[in-house]
Amino acid sequence: MSMSNDTAAKDGQKSARLAPRKVDVVIVGGGISGLTTARRLSQAGISVAVLEADDRVGGRTLSYEYAPGKIAELGGTWVGSTQDRILALAKELGINLFPQFNEGKTVYCYKGKRSTYSDTGWTGAAPPDLLLLPDLAIVTTLINQMASRLPPGEPWNAPEAEEWDRQTLETWLRRHTLSTRALKFASAAFETILGTEGRDISLLSALHHINGAGNAQNPGTFDRVIETRGGAQEFRIVEGAQQFSIRMAAALGESVVTSSPVRLIRQSEDGVHIESDRVDVEALHVVVALPPSMAARITYEPGLPAARDQLMQRYALGWLIKCEAVYDKPFWREQGLSGGALSDVGPAKLAYDVSPPDGSPGVLLGFVGGDEARRWGSRSHEDLRVAVIENFVSFFGPKAREVRDFYIHDWASEVWNRGGPIAFGGPGTLTGYGPALRDSVGRIHWSGTETADFWHGFMDGAVRAGERVAIDIRAQLKRSSQK
Amino acid sequence: MSMSNDTAAKDGQKSARLAPRKVDVVIVGGGISGLTTARRLSQAGISVAVLEADDRVGGRTLSYEYAPGKIAELGGTWVGSTQDRILALAKELGINLFPQFNEGKTVYCYKGKRSTYSDTGWTGAAPPDLLLLPDLAIVTTLINQMASRLPPGEPWNAPEAEEWDRQTLETWLRRHTLSTRALKFASAAFETILGTEGRDISLLSALHHINGAGNAQNPGTFDRVIETRGGAQEFRIVEGAQQFSIRMAAALGESVVTSSPVRLIRQSEDGVHIESDRVDVEALHVVVALPPSMAARITYEPGLPAARDQLMQRYALGWLIKCEAVYDKPFWREQGLSGGALSDVGPAKLAYDVSPPDGSPGVLLGFVGGDEARRWGSRSHEDLRVAVIENFVSFFGPKAREVRDFYIHDWASEVWNRGGPIAFGGPGTLTGYGPALRDSVGRIHWSGTETADFWHGFMDGAVRAGERVAIDIRAQLKRSSQK
Repeated sequence: MSMSNDTAAKDGQKSARLAPRKVDVVIVGGGISGLTTARRLSQAGISVAVLEADDRVGGRTLSYEYAPGKIAELGGTWVGSTQDRILALAKELGINLFPQFNEGKTVYCYKGKRSTYSDTGWTGAAPPDLLLLPDLAIVTTLINQMASRLPPGEPWNAPEAEEWDRQTLETWLRRHTLSTRALKFASAAFETILGTEGRDISLLSALHHINGAGNAQNPGTFDRVIETRGGAQEFRIVEGAQQFSIRMAAALGESVVTSSPVRLIRQSEDGVHIESDRVDVEALHVVVALPPSMAARITYEPGLPAARDQLMQRYALGWLIKCEAVYDKPFWREQGLSGGALSDVGPAKLAYDVSPPDGSPGVLLGFVGGDEARRWGSRSHEDLRVAVIENFVSFFGPKAREVRDFYIHDWASEVWNRGGPIAFGGPGTLTGYGPALRDSVGRIHWSGTETADFWHGFMDGAVRAGERVAIDIRAQLKRSSQK
Repeated sequence: MSMSNDTAAKDGQKSARLAPRKVDVVIVGGGISGLTTARRLSQAGISVAVLEADDRVGGRTLSYEYAPGKIAELGGTWVGSTQDRILALAKELGINLFPQFNEGKTVYCYKGKRSTYSDTGWTGAAPPDLLLLPDLAIVTTLINQMASRLPPGEPWNAPEAEEWDRQTLETWLRRHTLSTRALKFASAAFETILGTEGRDISLLSALHHINGAGNAQNPGTFDRVIETRGGAQEFRIVEGAQQFSIRMAAALGESVVTSSPVRLIRQSEDGVHIESDRVDVEALHVVVALPPSMAARITYEPGLPAARDQLMQRYALGWLIKCEAVYDKPFWREQGLSGGALSDVGPAKLAYDVSPPDGSPGVLLGFVGGDEARRWGSRSHEDLRVAVIENFVSFFGPKAREVRDFYIHDWASEVWNRGGPIAFGGPGTLTGYGPALRDSVGRIHWSGTETADFWHGFMDGAVRAGERVAIDIRAQLKRSSQK
């Protein structure tokens, strides 16, 4: 069985046209970022409208309830302990966390050889492969050192920004690794973390991502990006990650309009006029809480400054396909395995145990990203299902064939997402156009996780960006009311 | 004085809504590529409609008649002798060529030192700088050798495609040059040729551009891209480059609708339904003759395949600003200078004499591209004018201050162009998504100069792409009528 938006997590809202509205602030995009802005403004007594193109809220989170109380995360899945803002929002919304299952050994496959290892030592996520670890130690140390030199959220202001933005991550990795093994390991990590390949992004973009994996007190590190314990994969969400958006939208009530893609943002001296499929809105400010390449698909009148437009032409989403296999029980646990796996053979080069908190049923998640997604994204879901199950068999044995259900979610095929998990710039983009990521254009404000100072590309970054914009707009509204 | 579309080359067509139409083929984009397709189909008795967003035809050509019979080329300017298809079209349309003025010496400025040289020797466009030529000889030889290994129009099928697409052009240049001088020279060339920097594009993208600078009989070379004699800057157009489009549009009459941006392309089994601001059209096929990043701004129903969408998110236009200074006469000619200049100091690092055929008045063209465009594009036109005139003074002496008129055209600020002269992919784009550049999606065909086998990014490529699509569609219409 394959999954698409047609059957997942609908809110059932009809597509009838609504009467025009007038609010203080209109927000384009009903993901975590946009809804956080709407919530914060609304809490401050500022009237809002949230316009979402899709027939559901949640953006790049999508939680499919395949059985009562049982959630398959087809999008954003984890939060971690330096992700202060999403953790605070979870508390505020009564959303509960549980630890990512991490007991037992991890599977590592390389060149047809399978081994298992305990995720306990230094760079715990890395397999104890003697041909891999020396390279990995050097690369990780260098990468962390370089990343620490970036001003959070402003990588283009790093002293070495030009040098690091003029080469691909892959160019740098090839210069600083001795074995192709380390290169393959790093590739598999980036394929799944960014949905992209080391050649698609600049070294500076990669360092920006790592620099962001922390908070004001804890500088970002590579380890924290890839780790479970203390890292970005530390906790899962009992109710499903989409609940952040669903609960915020519920509290905002009729202020949220789904199935209503915004087509036009017209700005004048006094305000903004927004046209969407179901409703037109007049407001004082507009927040575009979309990745840059999706924000490009709205018509702006007057046209945006050239730098912003050029940024939107080259700040592209990665390509990630999430595959989940449901089993009667998590049989790998009985074998002393954590369900985690790392392999040099696709389509699913990375796997996790994503069973519910009570461990029933057993669910495996396979990441298919970058080149693997490009290769498999054009083939049938049935072909992909068969291939991913073969990956799982190679990791966990023949019992992995006894699949009860199988879900595929290809984020690049979703017309209102067109990729995932994160958008990034190729070489030259951050140094050439970086400030345009966030610089507002009159009454148009740019949000979305890509604009965050920390954890950009993650749910935490979405909250941070949403809160930053809410603060900016409140200050502007206050100033103009005092005039 | 600065120039914008508001005052340039209008066709005066009003913006009234027109009655819906039904034609065989609808073409989106009234540049050379789209109009060539329309012309060829129309000549074969196939009915067409051409929908152009702007209030003029011509795409990335724009000829401003600043005095009766006197043309300033604010966009595409030159054609060259291996550009068979645009040359044939010129003949067909009664458009006349004249040689680019190339008598006298070229000016070369580096590190504050000005020298002049005769454009006669090997790589004639290169200055005889002893610290530059050895590097340039090696780099040019290697680049030409590598470029010759690309299958025309299909760089992703080259044996070394992966290796060449995973590094930036700048990474490769730094490895193969001894002095920074060669790097600066190459940067100035690419800034103006592609409107971009060596770090923005992959080595494969650059090789693709060079491989395309030829035809089936003459393999592309770097020299032909940068040369005047026998190269891409060989001839100018007496009537102005925009005349290609204006004359083709005139012949097509009411089939061409300007000021009518296409918003929606809906495809069904039987045909396509197109919605544009002034007219809706039903057709059997649609040709999108736009650069990929502009094609992304149309809504497609059903959504496009993921690979095509992802391509459009990362195939960005360069940034080029063209500046033209009009003088009473071409005073530099009296000094034995050709009007050509190359400098390491911007904003205008490259200059040409673009006076009319009769040499009166004298006109200088300054290219402001890549980083220079990013730097100056956000400043006032007055600041840019002053700075470019200072460039011209440093090239040709104080008489360059006696400017009669000055025109600035910033292609990235034009809402229906958003950059120039060409769109290109960063590292990973051609190998990851290349075939999606041209692969039609059912009844949707992709055209525009970027899809050409030769001279992509040039007017000749636009004609080639337009003719290719016309042939494809004729074959398909013939097949379906035989069913």
